Amino acid sequence: MASTPQNSLRVAVAGVTGYAGAELARILLDHPRFATNPPIFLGRPESEGGAAISLTSLHPNLSGLPNADDARVIPFDWNELQREGVELMFLATPHEQSREWSQQALAHNIRVVDLSAAWRLDTPAYRAIYKLEDTAATDALQQEAVYGSPELHAAEIKTARLVANPGCYATSVILGLSPVVRANIVDLSAGIIADAKSGVSGAGKAPTPGTHFMYAADNLSAYAIFGHRHTGELYEQLSLQPDQIQFTPHLLPIPRGILSTIYVRFTEPQTIMSLQALFDDFYRDAPLVRVRKSPMTPQIQHVVRTSFCDIGFQLSPDGKRAVIIACLDNLLKGAASQAVENMNLMAGWPQQEGLI
Amino acid sequence: MASTPQNSLRVAVAGVTGYAGAELARILLDHPRFATNPPIFLGRPESEGGAAISLTSLHPNLSGLPNADDARVIPFDWNELQREGVELMFLATPHEQSREWSQQALAHNIRVVDLSAAWRLDTPAYRAIYKLEDTAATDALQQEAVYGSPELHAAEIKTARLVANPGCYATSVILGLSPVVRANIVDLSAGIIADAKSGVSGAGKAPTPGTHFMYAADNLSAYAIFGHRHTGELYEQLSLQPDQIQFTPHLLPIPRGILSTIYVRFTEPQTIMSLQALFDDFYRDAPLVRVRKSPMTPQIQHVVRTSFCDIGFQLSPDGKRAVIIACLDNLLKGAASQAVENMNLMAGWPQQEGLI
Amino acid sequence: MASTPQNSLRVAVAGVTGYAGAELARILLDHPRFATNPPIFLGRPESEGGAAISLTSLHPNLSGLPNADDARVIPFDWNELQREGVELMFLATPHEQSREWSQQALAHNIRVVDLSAAWRLDTPAYRAIYKLEDTAATDALQQEAVYGSPELHAAEIKTARLVANPGCYATSVILGLSPVVRANIVDLSAGIIADAKSGVSGAGKAPTPGTHFMYAADNLSAYAIFGHRHTGELYEQLSLQPDQIQFTPHLLPIPRGILSTIYVRFTEPQTIMSLQALFDDFYRDAPLVRVRKSPMTPQIQHVVRTSFCDIGFQLSPDGKRAVIIACLDNLLKGAASQAVENMNLMAGWPQQEGLI
Amino acid sequence: MASTPQNSLRVAVAGVTGYAGAELARILLDHPRFATNPPIFLGRPESEGGAAISLTSLHPNLSGLPNADDARVIPFDWNELQREGVELMFLATPHEQSREWSQQALAHNIRVVDLSAAWRLDTPAYRAIYKLEDTAATDALQQEAVYGSPELHAAEIKTARLVANPGCYATSVILGLSPVVRANIVDLSAGIIADAKSGVSGAGKAPTPGTHFMYAADNLSAYAIFGHRHTGELYEQLSLQPDQIQFTPHLLPIPRGILSTIYVRFTEPQTIMSLQALFDDFYRDAPLVRVRKSPMTPQIQHVVRTSFCDIGFQLSPDGKRAVIIACLDNLLKGAASQAVENMNLMAGWPQQEGLI
Repeated sequence: MASTPQNSLRVAVAGVTGYAGAELARILLDHPRFATNPPIFLGRPESEGGAAISLTSLHPNLSGLPNADDARVIPFDWNELQREGVELMFLATPHEQSREWSQQALAHNIRVVDLSAAWRLDTPAYRAIYKLEDTAATDALQQEAVYGSPELHAAEIKTARLVANPGCYATSVILGLSPVVRANIVDLSAGIIADAKSGVSGAGKAPTPGTHFMYAADNLSAYAIFGHRHTGELYEQLSLQPDQIQFTPHLLPIPRGILSTIYVRFTEPQTIMSLQALFDDFYRDAPLVRVRKSPMTPQIQHVVRTSFCDIGFQLSPDGKRAVIIACLDNLLKGAASQAVENMNLMAGWPQQEGLI
Repeated sequence: MASTPQNSLRVAVAGVTGYAGAELARILLDHPRFATNPPIFLGRPESEGGAAISLTSLHPNLSGLPNADDARVIPFDWNELQREGVELMFLATPHEQSREWSQQALAHNIRVVDLSAAWRLDTPAYRAIYKLEDTAATDALQQEAVYGSPELHAAEIKTARLVANPGCYATSVILGLSPVVRANIVDLSAGIIADAKSGVSGAGKAPTPGTHFMYAADNLSAYAIFGHRHTGELYEQLSLQPDQIQFTPHLLPIPRGILSTIYVRFTEPQTIMSLQALFDDFYRDAPLVRVRKSPMTPQIQHVVRTSFCDIGFQLSPDGKRAVIIACLDNLLKGAASQAVENMNLMAGWPQQEGLI
Repeated sequence: MASTPQNSLRVAVAGVTGYAGAELARILLDHPRFATNPPIFLGRPESEGGAAISLTSLHPNLSGLPNADDARVIPFDWNELQREGVELMFLATPHEQSREWSQQALAHNIRVVDLSAAWRLDTPAYRAIYKLEDTAATDALQQEAVYGSPELHAAEIKTARLVANPGCYATSVILGLSPVVRANIVDLSAGIIADAKSGVSGAGKAPTPGTHFMYAADNLSAYAIFGHRHTGELYEQLSLQPDQIQFTPHLLPIPRGILSTIYVRFTEPQTIMSLQALFDDFYRDAPLVRVRKSPMTPQIQHVVRTSFCDIGFQLSPDGKRAVIIACLDNLLKGAASQAVENMNLMAGWPQQEGLI
Repeated sequence: MASTPQNSLRVAVAGVTGYAGAELARILLDHPRFATNPPIFLGRPESEGGAAISLTSLHPNLSGLPNADDARVIPFDWNELQREGVELMFLATPHEQSREWSQQALAHNIRVVDLSAAWRLDTPAYRAIYKLEDTAATDALQQEAVYGSPELHAAEIKTARLVANPGCYATSVILGLSPVVRANIVDLSAGIIADAKSGVSGAGKAPTPGTHFMYAADNLSAYAIFGHRHTGELYEQLSLQPDQIQFTPHLLPIPRGILSTIYVRFTEPQTIMSLQALFDDFYRDAPLVRVRKSPMTPQIQHVVRTSFCDIGFQLSPDGKRAVIIACLDNLLKGAASQAVENMNLMAGWPQQEGLI
């Protein structure tokens, strides 16, 4: 077994062909803890036709970066991972695949950060949309899995064996709403509206009619109204009932970025100052959330290709309603960089290391 | 005085340099009623440095079209308009200019379709945002002016001397909401949310930091939260109080198109069938509103470069909430083509003539 | 057999699902000759699972337009076409399919405008890239087929039974170069360079890695260098040898439009005036070519969604070199509207009817 | 006077409001040599209304990054720069301003990397386009100034007092052509064609009709044909006469990135292998040029937001012609990151430090 350099960790990444996996590869190759201990990149198992190839043949934009030209994507193989002494694994794989590999990884004493939805939801009814098969073993593991939102669950993440990395839309809405919802100032009977807009990378790399340039360009459309998969994460993380929040995603004609416009009514009138203090305090120690000073609100250009979630708000003149805007890069804070935050916490390193 | 061919009308257009004016020119040149009686295009008055130029030097994309290469943009001059026997005038000018010219046009017995906000709002408080000077004469004219939404006010438009063409955002929200608001099924105490997104042409032709390609491209931002100029039109046309509707516009990284996502709660649960019937019936005789069959909802690509407003909806499983989506081209149904609808009605022609 | 109204023609369109087919449907529905005699739209044969559907279910953007909501796409069937008395057929189908159906159409006395490359190339070596099977019958038909460039071959098109509609890139380069090449002023030994750029619709509707929004957006790439299929059309129509012209296409991050930048050296120095006269004279009677006055050169925005090809040039100070720029909408002058020009000529109607 | 930490350098940046200046600020804040010695950012002199503001108020996207929130943009003042012990200065200023400040900086013993065109051109005729006033002093300084292309002039740059950072277009064409031109294999009598395409950031931050989103989006246009300012750099750096190369820039509808398609004819037929070896050898020690293996050619997505110039080529079947494609990010390798390369060399650090 290979030994891990002090202050580093032996990590592997499954699923580097997709967009989130590619970002993960890019971040980890540049991460100071891996300068002399680069991650292992995994493709399909050999039995399924996987063969070793260079990482830069998949992602030519990475060539020339430190360690990148030497990096190989090798066939997935548990024996190889054990020989290499892998301690932590990222799964940037479909949720069915993540279900299977997570369990096997833990059995091999490998901690897991799973970027899929396989372990995000405790409530069977919310999970049903993913059509995952539940057993006693998966139920137990679901209980153990930690929802990987570092701003909300840092303590549990640090010691977790299995971290479920949050959904991209869900991250923006949960971070935008948590301060006011936890402060119990929102009038839930009026219903919260989260009108969200995402770039096309959120739809994945598979060429489909909906990701065709001719469909997405110069267009805007709503989809999955009353039925998006990420809604369950909102209910659970914000402790809301389904009729207390309405989430509507839209497909933006841009490569990446999410902007969520969130509408709340308050039970009592608020002041700009008190609301600003609420957000500022909530994220005082969060290195990757930038709270903007009202009336400034976030915009997608400020967060794209960064690991930040930006949050801002404006208050109605009568203090009874607010528009909260939360913005992030769906492939970074909405996927790969948040996964690295989770790894950093699990390894005992600063949450933002390698990310800013 | 020139005589107008039978079944035609002598029309003039002021303000053809802007985006809406250019669309207006294009539509009118192609309008069957003007094949042998092309409109007169007006630039700045000679006293302000206006000089006759060819229309296609301003808009090279129009050259080669019927009548276009002969079209001149001449200095604005009331004497010339009288000599030409102009009967109806489009004002695609800033609201201050429209205020002045509208009054002068009526004094010259020329009917007016004004594309600016000069005469849209009856309520002084809502109008204040435009900083227009009110006099007894303008108050009287404001009383007389008809809000040019053909779907709502066709009868008054037909005989109007002065038509105030609606705002682009306002048109989408008003058409999306009118069926349910007029049917008195919306729970107004919960508040309606209209989350609207518009292409950059809505911001006008002046080069500004906000219309710079580098600002708008690959971006999305909200603006004028709690304070957009079009809000007053929503209040008045939908008979709503300011705390009953929240309107938030966003700048989309596309040239043209508006999509408004509108959230309503109902006082009583609705069925898809009843709601569909409500929309279908409301727009049964509207040639330029396309009601989509739920769960199909509109998208910007379907309306761009058309004169249609598309409307669709989805209902929550419990029937208590709906998401209504209204979509149009801000330069056409949101400006130039709606102005032509108004002219068609004023002339006694079919509303959609020259537009589909 | 149905009878055709006087001054009309009974036409059918095969292949309305693709981008060019959709544009063809839109143009024909709006064409004055078909107001009471709408075209027949054909899908896959019933034997291959084709079933009658509404045209607007395929193209929701067309609904509300005259005749559009009644239009059906019916299964392809020769008997039905004969019963309907079809006289002319558009084939917006892959070249293999066009080969087969063209021959059958002619056997049924139906004239053909084929938008594919099936019949564009006389030279077997240039045709080889399409891997079409040649027989004595197809060789004979190839001899008969007319290359459907109305600016170059109007007389032959008028009486043709089979018209091969030109390629989109080829149209721009051929129209840009014909005046100077036919005038024998180009130094062919130096080689002509045609550096062309096209929007994504040129790549077709099939979702592929290369048409994925994430690949095409914010990108530019050259492809098929030294090997694009349209090169043979350049050689034949411009009477050039392969080493006398270099054609390089690029994929632009826009939906539609082609701009070809063409570099020529002259055997003798030219003047701006003589070159302008050459272009002006060449296209004096061409209603759909707009020659710009040097130094103005075309840009994509001026031609998109029009049927025009715009051409302009600039001359080097020493008069020995020119940059010629030709611009068109690849789905219109590069496909559907040029096909309608051909139909108009074949029917004895004005070339531009229904197009401007 | 402040003392500079060992292995660091005291640097200042003038002109951080523009696009290149903003990128420069971002790179330097993240550069390992400046972790404890951040650069000084300079705005307009106090006498012209300059006042100290925070860097992140100009560029909110930078907040949260190391040192960024503390960074101030202070009024330009030579006394302050001397007090701070500034040793090297970046000028991301207009060329007239750079002319003046460069001379003053050298007088204060501050070395200069100038991102403008003030000192790029030795030949008065080529420089004339910039309308700079020449004196004996500026002539002498021009002689001394080093053209800051690290791949071509590393030795001179290391000891230079004044480095003229190359133009963005020029960098792509010079790097693409240098290997073949220096090898004397190009047939210059046939003329080289460089057909270049750039994103909108190349046009600068000032809002103009040409940078308006509505002009640039969904468009492509050529400009400055036979007259672009960067042409002189091509002539000088490649030792070409004006009639030996034709350079044509185009405005791409994307924020950033340049792709130059370069056409050359050879005096003798080449092989792919020999040409590949020529490029590979030429850039063997260049850490920021990535030579692609033919037939792979660069594309803009691979270089945007990187410091690399990518170069690739394809050869005609007869070996007599090649298409060379060079690609870079105009704000990075075409401006800010190349400026940092120059600083690195001047300080004796690795050329690519802080850049990959």
